[in-house]
Amino acid sequence: MVIDLNSDLGEGFGAWPLTDDEALLDIVTSANVACGFHAGDPSVLRKVTELAAERGVVIGAQVGYRDLAGFGRRFIDMDPHELVNDVLYQIGALEGFAKIAGTRVRYVKPHGALYNAVVHHTEQAAAVVDAVKRYDPGLPILGLPGSELLRQAEAEGLTAVEEAFADRAYTPEGRLVSRRLPGAVVHEPGEVVRRSVRMATDGTVTATDGSSVAARPRSLCVHGDTAGAVEIARKVRQGLLDAGIEVRSFA
Amino acid sequence: MVIDLNSDLGEGFGAWPLTDDEALLDIVTSANVACGFHAGDPSVLRKVTELAAERGVVIGAQVGYRDLAGFGRRFIDMDPHELVNDVLYQIGALEGFAKIAGTRVRYVKPHGALYNAVVHHTEQAAAVVDAVKRYDPGLPILGLPGSELLRQAEAEGLTAVEEAFADRAYTPEGRLVSRRLPGAVVHEPGEVVRRSVRMATDGTVTATDGSSVAARPRSLCVHGDTAGAVEIARKVRQGLLDAGIEVRSFA
Amino acid sequence: MVIDLNSDLGEGFGAWPLTDDEALLDIVTSANVACGFHAGDPSVLRKVTELAAERGVVIGAQVGYRDLAGFGRRFIDMDPHELVNDVLYQIGALEGFAKIAGTRVRYVKPHGALYNAVVHHTEQAAAVVDAVKRYDPGLPILGLPGSELLRQAEAEGLTAVEEAFADRAYTPEGRLVSRRLPGAVVHEPGEVVRRSVRMATDGTVTATDGSSVAARPRSLCVHGDTAGAVEIARKVRQGLLDAGIEVRSFA
Amino acid sequence: MVIDLNSDLGEGFGAWPLTDDEALLDIVTSANVACGFHAGDPSVLRKVTELAAERGVVIGAQVGYRDLAGFGRRFIDMDPHELVNDVLYQIGALEGFAKIAGTRVRYVKPHGALYNAVVHHTEQAAAVVDAVKRYDPGLPILGLPGSELLRQAEAEGLTAVEEAFADRAYTPEGRLVSRRLPGAVVHEPGEVVRRSVRMATDGTVTATDGSSVAARPRSLCVHGDTAGAVEIARKVRQGLLDAGIEVRSFA
Repeated sequence: MVIDLNSDLGEGFGAWPLTDDEALLDIVTSANVACGFHAGDPSVLRKVTELAAERGVVIGAQVGYRDLAGFGRRFIDMDPHELVNDVLYQIGALEGFAKIAGTRVRYVKPHGALYNAVVHHTEQAAAVVDAVKRYDPGLPILGLPGSELLRQAEAEGLTAVEEAFADRAYTPEGRLVSRRLPGAVVHEPGEVVRRSVRMATDGTVTATDGSSVAARPRSLCVHGDTAGAVEIARKVRQGLLDAGIEVRSFA
Repeated sequence: MVIDLNSDLGEGFGAWPLTDDEALLDIVTSANVACGFHAGDPSVLRKVTELAAERGVVIGAQVGYRDLAGFGRRFIDMDPHELVNDVLYQIGALEGFAKIAGTRVRYVKPHGALYNAVVHHTEQAAAVVDAVKRYDPGLPILGLPGSELLRQAEAEGLTAVEEAFADRAYTPEGRLVSRRLPGAVVHEPGEVVRRSVRMATDGTVTATDGSSVAARPRSLCVHGDTAGAVEIARKVRQGLLDAGIEVRSFA
Repeated sequence: MVIDLNSDLGEGFGAWPLTDDEALLDIVTSANVACGFHAGDPSVLRKVTELAAERGVVIGAQVGYRDLAGFGRRFIDMDPHELVNDVLYQIGALEGFAKIAGTRVRYVKPHGALYNAVVHHTEQAAAVVDAVKRYDPGLPILGLPGSELLRQAEAEGLTAVEEAFADRAYTPEGRLVSRRLPGAVVHEPGEVVRRSVRMATDGTVTATDGSSVAARPRSLCVHGDTAGAVEIARKVRQGLLDAGIEVRSFA
Repeated sequence: MVIDLNSDLGEGFGAWPLTDDEALLDIVTSANVACGFHAGDPSVLRKVTELAAERGVVIGAQVGYRDLAGFGRRFIDMDPHELVNDVLYQIGALEGFAKIAGTRVRYVKPHGALYNAVVHHTEQAAAVVDAVKRYDPGLPILGLPGSELLRQAEAEGLTAVEEAFADRAYTPEGRLVSRRLPGAVVHEPGEVVRRSVRMATDGTVTATDGSSVAARPRSLCVHGDTAGAVEIARKVRQGLLDAGIEVRSFA
């Protein structure tokens, strides 16, 4: 049994730190590095890619809308052709830092509102897929199971990698409970660990109605924007190892 | 006798066009493509790199300060370490588009206030050289003869390429007359052509006092931000060809 | 018979000019001045407000989404509370320049994608109305007849001012034909003038099916982003004057 | 004996918090509110101005260079005419929020690299003074004693308000020790309090060589970007009150 742990990193900007990149890089196997459009200035990118390369953590491009003020969390109804180019720009910018750190960008994951949009937005999903395919058809895309993004990625011959969230509640249909609803996030560390282990071993997770739904991700997403989140992420990793699961990148 | 013609391209942004990229790409052999910090949004970069690749025009990264409002024409006294990373980010972003157009970034040229700063600013010149060396030590740097930038580039084993300006007046010491002074720019097309041909053949240019000073550039910079400028650039190219000079990239 | 002529002004940014502000300020009676979020740097705002004040042209705040790269033409699904504040920020910024030019911001008009959104988007329309009401309940809002924006403005006791477009085609239901459809824009100058005069006098316009629909705007919007547009705007003004219509601000 | 306490507030941006605005507004009498160019998005400005108005804390415009990535800490060699307009834009933007909070912008203080530049940079100091004089000649400018900024402000008939730093070391000439040198910042809370009280009562401070130099500020600047800084600021306020000094705004 093998699973990947991914987390959003490099989300500071200038004088403003955010993610605890050093702590997380000792925990995860895949680093979703912000590329400057929603967060991440060039010096942040340099540092994160170097630290990741030193630790053997795989680097992915976490691409988002050009929206620093909104942290990429606001849907932008942009021309899909322009979105293709915005994604290409971000991958390329990160690749430069990966290159001087002796490694490469190994996957792409959309961020925030773009992540949510490409679950169902056909044209924007196609734009992300088009950008990745043009850049490197061997580059996997990391996203939500059942999303338009992963469906189109596979249809275009790309590698689609499904992820699940260690600390999010699921509906009986296997979807994420919206963050706007109560109980959307599981806070109790032990429970987060148990759910993570069960997804990695049984390929199931307990839904909000107590039923068991399928969730067999190749990657688990953990958070690192608070001290508590880092601590939970560390426990998830340890819990997986204790259960005899190998924690290893999918790339 | 061989000379390169370079020009600044891709300097529009969003709804605002600027350089007549299509016209210039039929004239020059090297395209200094803006990389998004002083001008050039991702869709502009995509288009320019594709058009350049189709025509066999060599693509260079025209790197500048992060200053859209000032078009990169204002000196920013930034930390040299951050400048290294800003330059790397820009080269990488452009490289992504060069790659999907089937080519590569083949040289680097600083823009605007950064171009002027690295003539004498030791730390910023070192930052640009450091960025290029880390990214690819085989990448030439295009700049002003006698500048700190080219001196350091050579000292670090990089290829330093000297350029001259077809339409700028020179002092008896061989320096450019400041744009703040009258007569800094030569406007008469025939005169611009004659000076260009003489630099390419004799390696000299007539200074403001009538004396002849050395100027044997491997590349001539022509402008394209007005219709008149494009017309002059076209005449410079034709004049060089008529004089039996080969117009070819240095890269 | 009285009508106002309004136009979008101050839409350059840094090195990039766009609207021919000087020419338009001799034509229109209301200047929708960009406030820096979709276009308009502080030096542009300074110049436009000073020129408008000199000519007695009324100044309005043309507020948009924070999106320089998209020129405010892309819908952003932002938190309405944040939109209230973005609108307040833009009005205030412009007010400073109006103040030193000896005048005031006299109305507010949304720009681009925000203009289109508040035709139907209840929360964003409410946000714009809320911002204006908090800032100055005496400030009129200029917008599309029948829009959610004007409906809410009136419900909140604000002055709602209806505008029409001199050069746009209308459906039999009195709506604008989408720009994505052929024939959305009327190009023939004489036709634009005739439609303008008829709207100002009869309060009707010929729809795409030849029928006559109601359109009795207090303000006509003319464009100024091309030389041809400026020329048409000039003809519209002259046509209105020739028909005995007074061209005067609504404010 | 009376002294003002000022602090930089509203320096978050989007998803990135920075200053602990609520805590500081219970301590200071003057709030230097960031205006969006180096920090401070519109929702931050709204919140800080409302909280300040509720507590009776005076609001000042903390104006800086347009440089989010550099937090306004990098000198930009910009055209003084453009700087006038950048300052006007920022004051106006903040004024809108002050207005709806039932108050006004009551002073101006430059931020970061601009603060340092106008100590000696004649043209940029003149630009700040020009902007304030045009906007409202009754608006005081807060700055460094002996600076070009305050000298020009007084020469132009504006009110110049001198400030000192509770936690910074001074040279025997009465200047601030550069932050690049060791010992530039006094960290021991008790020492910071003693120095503050002595400046407010005796009008002197102990310099790095042990000598006593004149420092009789009308305002003391305290910091609030770390939890420790807020605690020291609170102690400074209490220490001043305990010494029988009234803590009151200069405006």
